[in-house]
Amino acid sequence: MRLLIINPNTTASMTAKVAEAARRVAAADTEIVAVTSPHGPASIEGYYDEALSLAGLLQAIRDNPDHDAVVIACFDDTGLDAARCLTDKPVVGIGEAGYRMAAMLSNHFSVVTTLARSVPALQHNLRRYGMERQCVRVRASDVAVLELEEEGSCALDKIRQEIALAISEDHAEAIVLGCAGMTALAASLQQEFGLPVLDGVACAVALCESMARVGLKTSRRGGYAPPPAHKLQLEMAKAAKQA
Amino acid sequence: MRLLIINPNTTASMTAKVAEAARRVAAADTEIVAVTSPHGPASIEGYYDEALSLAGLLQAIRDNPDHDAVVIACFDDTGLDAARCLTDKPVVGIGEAGYRMAAMLSNHFSVVTTLARSVPALQHNLRRYGMERQCVRVRASDVAVLELEEEGSCALDKIRQEIALAISEDHAEAIVLGCAGMTALAASLQQEFGLPVLDGVACAVALCESMARVGLKTSRRGGYAPPPAHKLQLEMAKAAKQA
Amino acid sequence: MRLLIINPNTTASMTAKVAEAARRVAAADTEIVAVTSPHGPASIEGYYDEALSLAGLLQAIRDNPDHDAVVIACFDDTGLDAARCLTDKPVVGIGEAGYRMAAMLSNHFSVVTTLARSVPALQHNLRRYGMERQCVRVRASDVAVLELEEEGSCALDKIRQEIALAISEDHAEAIVLGCAGMTALAASLQQEFGLPVLDGVACAVALCESMARVGLKTSRRGGYAPPPAHKLQLEMAKAAKQA
Amino acid sequence: MRLLIINPNTTASMTAKVAEAARRVAAADTEIVAVTSPHGPASIEGYYDEALSLAGLLQAIRDNPDHDAVVIACFDDTGLDAARCLTDKPVVGIGEAGYRMAAMLSNHFSVVTTLARSVPALQHNLRRYGMERQCVRVRASDVAVLELEEEGSCALDKIRQEIALAISEDHAEAIVLGCAGMTALAASLQQEFGLPVLDGVACAVALCESMARVGLKTSRRGGYAPPPAHKLQLEMAKAAKQA
Amino acid sequence: MRLLIINPNTTASMTAKVAEAARRVAAADTEIVAVTSPHGPASIEGYYDEALSLAGLLQAIRDNPDHDAVVIACFDDTGLDAARCLTDKPVVGIGEAGYRMAAMLSNHFSVVTTLARSVPALQHNLRRYGMERQCVRVRASDVAVLELEEEGSCALDKIRQEIALAISEDHAEAIVLGCAGMTALAASLQQEFGLPVLDGVACAVALCESMARVGLKTSRRGGYAPPPAHKLQLEMAKAAKQA
Amino acid sequence: MRLLIINPNTTASMTAKVAEAARRVAAADTEIVAVTSPHGPASIEGYYDEALSLAGLLQAIRDNPDHDAVVIACFDDTGLDAARCLTDKPVVGIGEAGYRMAAMLSNHFSVVTTLARSVPALQHNLRRYGMERQCVRVRASDVAVLELEEEGSCALDKIRQEIALAISEDHAEAIVLGCAGMTALAASLQQEFGLPVLDGVACAVALCESMARVGLKTSRRGGYAPPPAHKLQLEMAKAAKQA
Repeated sequence: MRLLIINPNTTASMTAKVAEAARRVAAADTEIVAVTSPHGPASIEGYYDEALSLAGLLQAIRDNPDHDAVVIACFDDTGLDAARCLTDKPVVGIGEAGYRMAAMLSNHFSVVTTLARSVPALQHNLRRYGMERQCVRVRASDVAVLELEEEGSCALDKIRQEIALAISEDHAEAIVLGCAGMTALAASLQQEFGLPVLDGVACAVALCESMARVGLKTSRRGGYAPPPAHKLQLEMAKAAKQA
Repeated sequence: MRLLIINPNTTASMTAKVAEAARRVAAADTEIVAVTSPHGPASIEGYYDEALSLAGLLQAIRDNPDHDAVVIACFDDTGLDAARCLTDKPVVGIGEAGYRMAAMLSNHFSVVTTLARSVPALQHNLRRYGMERQCVRVRASDVAVLELEEEGSCALDKIRQEIALAISEDHAEAIVLGCAGMTALAASLQQEFGLPVLDGVACAVALCESMARVGLKTSRRGGYAPPPAHKLQLEMAKAAKQA
Repeated sequence: MRLLIINPNTTASMTAKVAEAARRVAAADTEIVAVTSPHGPASIEGYYDEALSLAGLLQAIRDNPDHDAVVIACFDDTGLDAARCLTDKPVVGIGEAGYRMAAMLSNHFSVVTTLARSVPALQHNLRRYGMERQCVRVRASDVAVLELEEEGSCALDKIRQEIALAISEDHAEAIVLGCAGMTALAASLQQEFGLPVLDGVACAVALCESMARVGLKTSRRGGYAPPPAHKLQLEMAKAAKQA
Repeated sequence: MRLLIINPNTTASMTAKVAEAARRVAAADTEIVAVTSPHGPASIEGYYDEALSLAGLLQAIRDNPDHDAVVIACFDDTGLDAARCLTDKPVVGIGEAGYRMAAMLSNHFSVVTTLARSVPALQHNLRRYGMERQCVRVRASDVAVLELEEEGSCALDKIRQEIALAISEDHAEAIVLGCAGMTALAASLQQEFGLPVLDGVACAVALCESMARVGLKTSRRGGYAPPPAHKLQLEMAKAAKQA
Repeated sequence: MRLLIINPNTTASMTAKVAEAARRVAAADTEIVAVTSPHGPASIEGYYDEALSLAGLLQAIRDNPDHDAVVIACFDDTGLDAARCLTDKPVVGIGEAGYRMAAMLSNHFSVVTTLARSVPALQHNLRRYGMERQCVRVRASDVAVLELEEEGSCALDKIRQEIALAISEDHAEAIVLGCAGMTALAASLQQEFGLPVLDGVACAVALCESMARVGLKTSRRGGYAPPPAHKLQLEMAKAAKQA
Repeated sequence: MRLLIINPNTTASMTAKVAEAARRVAAADTEIVAVTSPHGPASIEGYYDEALSLAGLLQAIRDNPDHDAVVIACFDDTGLDAARCLTDKPVVGIGEAGYRMAAMLSNHFSVVTTLARSVPALQHNLRRYGMERQCVRVRASDVAVLELEEEGSCALDKIRQEIALAISEDHAEAIVLGCAGMTALAASLQQEFGLPVLDGVACAVALCESMARVGLKTSRRGGYAPPPAHKLQLEMAKAAKQA
């Protein structure tokens, strides 16, 4: 099975980290193809970055048509709906994956994410997925995405503090880590706090593998119907010219 | 990996069918342990049957503690919450699995189930999972559960008719088959109608496998906290005496 | 009028207390028939206990067919839907009764219940009844059900403390006591805190009496349709054998 | 017990019909005091009539302070919140009573009311009470309120037709009749259609009686806090002058 | 353009203040006609006052039929639905206007209003308008309406304090001031706190002007259908007699 | 006042039509600056087109910083949140404007849009704005966006047919036309069908004018906080290079 993972920002070190996390959980016969978006913002923090990352993300999917499932490795689930128009294979965002898994392991959970500016976008996603009741609260840890890439930052302490509050104030039964860059922290935090701490990357990889194995496909009817051929060709011609 | 699948009704032919469907999608190294509930109703159609199947279902889980994940193979997701109190491994219902997968493959879907009397129980589950917006409608096909076990019944035609209506009236982008007994029909119906037709058994097996591989665990805090030891011992003593 | 009250746990002292509370509010011509569940857990605290209490609860109803209405005297409203399949008389849970009465006496209320593990089950009921907006919060007082049966416990103080917080933090206009075992406390707490403090037992008795007097009946269509005769007979034969 | 029933429109024949329905279900020792609003519209059909009926309704309550509970006998539950500020006794609207009773007897129900112009006001109430999921649909029968007072009108046929549709299209498990003027029709329609057909007047009377017997009181905190004395005195002086 | 603004309480100084606020934002060619309700309570604080203000409010609209749009200048949006039955011109409440504008300028906002007793009425409106998710919280500042008319009161300090809490606790991105009497405070509070602080009067005037310029009209179908002529004539005759 | 209207697709004839519609309703002293997106799809029909239009849309806003308010002239409200991060002036989408106006003129309304593939995106917006209850249904007329630009197409008949169904089946009290290309049809359809038929372009222009006149500003806190300067500069440099 060939699992395409797109990092929709342009920071290659995050792609590497995500790929590593994916390989840690993938089945032996799953090939992880991790792709950095060809252009767009270096990190995705809120609506504006999200919007600017979409063209690169979709190009990366069009450029890698040989896949059995697609993971969008940004916790905002950037471009998820548009991506589903481009392939009949399953497409899963790491935010969505984390939420849906948490919803099967706990009665209610909290999310610990990066900056306050990213919170409303996550809340909109949660409502859209029907998770606004199971997710008690989205907590900003005040850690910038790229700060998670720096050694020696106090990012971990800030995240730890929010988890403690999620347990005491939100009565959270599980925690979802709200950034692809936090993928390496889940196991030790789960150990430390004694409740499930979910990393969206692992969840999405696992979900995609299982969807692909069952042969599930994205619907071609209604909102995810493929765009007309002439629109696709135009986009591909334009991308080719820019390259 | 050892995947425990409980058929919470006492009809062994349904257990066999479910086990077969599970083995069709499971990974090579997954052992499928399919167990028929030791006592309770022969089929689960609505609230009353659900209630009477719970003790048997929970006993089957207590009797099979060596598992990496548990599937509850009844589309009502009978006893799902209680089962999660009994193990820290993932526990997934086939209704829940079908809904959550459909929600990642379509903007909205419909369910085609058996009898009208079962519809409200499914609607309650859908609301609880936050799926009341993505699921447009739960349609009764007027097929009794055990009718699906009989050769030569007109069950398939009735199901086909409801799928056609779900497409034309509900604008469904995907269909979830609403009974463990329909597991063998999904592939050909998907072919016939040209949209995803999901079988909850396959979805749940795949989900559980991937949850277990990632190491996800049911929360032990709050609503799924394990019952006190003395309560568990009492139950086990009582079951032993009855056996 | 003959009002059947089932205590779905097996603690007879709780049945007695509930019966006493019921007789305090019942009309002169209402006969209170209070029945302890023939088997199941000694107290119901969360999903697992709920599940194991169902068979006993339903047997108690089948064994007492001569009634004008049924009260399920557990604040989790254990088995409410299944019970409604067994009789065309009104069936009311004490949780449901407390919530619906509180919703007619206040703009929003809080619930003070026993253990944290019971909270999610109550929250699910509240959502199902459409009360998730009128009920601001379900508060665990950290009092075990059977602790309420012990003299000299500090249960009352813990409950008092949560009521005070419900008033100051939730702006609750009324309080619903969230356990059948708290039935004796309502009057004095109402006096002390100067706002309605509702006991579900009293509310359910009053509701059932009024429903029965008006001649209201549980619907026999759809989800509460009676189970087929052969299923009922099987259950009754099995229960007879075990007895 | 003294039960005050206010007809908030000025049609005395409706008051008489409502009083009769109330006496049919009330306990032997309940005194029914039925009062016609001193001024306002002759029938309440939609928002405008509702608004103009409020002053008269509230005056009728202030003029009859000796009561144990109050029923507002208009299916729009006109002035329910304002009335609750005027008394610490229970106040119940016949719409609210019908909905809450139906919600305990069925999984979902439909309402059959008078004119299309009244539908949105009922829908707002249903949402406010948290009934928007249990009530499948509010159906206008195209029968004007006062047409129900005329002999020989075809009102009954129109209502019958909507009940038939509610069963076949809405899968309603119960029907709530949506007008105080329909109170005499419930019993025969229930007989004819074989499912619960609820009359709000009977439901409200029974509810109020049992709430009063249990000693339940309207909260005096928050939204139902009594208006300051000087405001009440002003209103009473003004009403006295007009009389 | 002629914009009719009704103050539904009888305090003329509030009408003057509202008119001044309206003229500050109105276009040069907009004539502001500000009318004090002919009778009713001196201030509107909660359900009871609301109910008693309706007849005067509607009379004021009937008495001023020559308008291009109507503003109801009470933050409870008193009588909004009834008023829409009286005219095919746009009718906007200042609460509604403030909420809808805030919803286009922020992801979520809080309301700072007067007394705790008014909070539930505002919450009901917010739910009805579909704003219960975008409005995080309605905060009572414990300032009575007429206190805002007195010089030297500490009203401003109390309001300031609640805004500070709305920012720190609710993460509000905007504030809506919840009383017509606070209209003069918005600009300086916005300056002080560095986030949008909306005054409903200004918002409603602006909305009405734009609706009228575009030629938008209140629907005459369904819930806002005009009352039958004989009902209107009766009301006008009665009002004439009283005058 | 300078009102910037962005057509986020690249079809200049649609921009011209939108500009004309805008000028028809704008105040005399409002300058309408209508801009066609510099690059992206020729029409926006569903998620994929939306995603590809975002970079061009945001560039158009960055290139036109001298404005008092911004209208996004696509009924999908493409990029609305991202655009609000780029300016502290009001930004309104024509979908949002149409919905919010319709919600103040009717109890519930239906939307008539272009293709079925666009419906889910509109439904998501409606839920996000809290309009899922007031909007009864989004109806696809099966008219492609660019078909509206062709003379002699049968687009109008298809739209007319859906309006008729919205009235008879949805009991719609108002209609919102769901495409910028339908802007010229509203007046005559309103005339023909006798209920409000809203054009989002006119609604958005009027809304923006009044928001700007009142001095309302987009919040700079939380989700709409401006992106850091270095991210903006990068984008502008990149756009310059491509030009």
